Amino acid sequence: MLKLFEYNWQVRNEWFEWCETVSMEELMKPRTGGIGYILPTLYHIVAVEYGWICAGILQKEIHIPPFEEIMSVRQIKAFSDRCHAELAPFVRQWHEGLEDLVMIDVTDEGVEEAHQYGEVMRHVIAHEIHHIGQLSVWSREIGKKPVSANFIGRGLFPTPM
Amino acid sequence: MLKLFEYNWQVRNEWFEWCETVSMEELMKPRTGGIGYILPTLYHIVAVEYGWICAGILQKEIHIPPFEEIMSVRQIKAFSDRCHAELAPFVRQWHEGLEDLVMIDVTDEGVEEAHQYGEVMRHVIAHEIHHIGQLSVWSREIGKKPVSANFIGRGLFPTPM
Repeated sequence: MLKLFEYNWQVRNEWFEWCETVSMEELMKPRTGGIGYILPTLYHIVAVEYGWICAGILQKEIHIPPFEEIMSVRQIKAFSDRCHAELAPFVRQWHEGLEDLVMIDVTDEGVEEAHQYGEVMRHVIAHEIHHIGQLSVWSREIGKKPVSANFIGRGLFPTPM
Repeated sequence: MLKLFEYNWQVRNEWFEWCETVSMEELMKPRTGGIGYILPTLYHIVAVEYGWICAGILQKEIHIPPFEEIMSVRQIKAFSDRCHAELAPFVRQWHEGLEDLVMIDVTDEGVEEAHQYGEVMRHVIAHEIHHIGQLSVWSREIGKKPVSANFIGRGLFPTPM
């Protein structure tokens, strides 16, 4: 489980670096599909991971600043770093015994839904990779090479002899 | 590990159903980013999973038909089904003891590279989700709702009480 989170965190940080090479106009230009803008997609990825893990599983009081308050690459990267510092210890100590524990989520419609921790963790993993796939298309629209999506070759596994 | 493969297989089959509602012209229209076309993306996802698992890890002789030979939704779905039947038993019996086993991959440049099974399996998972994210953008370009990317709500985990 941890390795796919590490992959997402690494790829996300490379997208923040990529953003530094692109104008704010491009980052906030309306686009087709997904969240519809590059920078809000990165904000959304961070907020969703933070919400599911820290508020959902860990039942902590969390504050997610509105996008309008942190509307720059630097501030969203700082938001990502803060969330990461708060949730990474839980992800790092993940073990199979947590798979079937249950959390209660209250949907936007006020309905209570029970989810197993293992389901939530995989949801968060797939959520980020999916949205990053959308960024890769928008990147080509701007004429820029996207961040590599390869899992292999990132040093996530020590190279065997 | 298995749950994320099951997620990918489910989502992929929903994309094949989605393809049945779209003209061949749209499925083969050049698009920006990724593989550059909808139907070849699905073919590519299947071929990559099959290649890494059956040829790479299981060291089987495999045959991947050229795209031009199976250039229809029905035939690529059939190719996907065949590959799935061949590789699913391995994925289903995955266990932690396999994580660190090593396979040798020969790159297109003829270079031998060693990869741990755990790295290959996660590469395959992330690869498919990433490309599906691209399909979701192209789907909106056609004016169609994409297949849901949600992991939660697919019945992949039994609903807890």
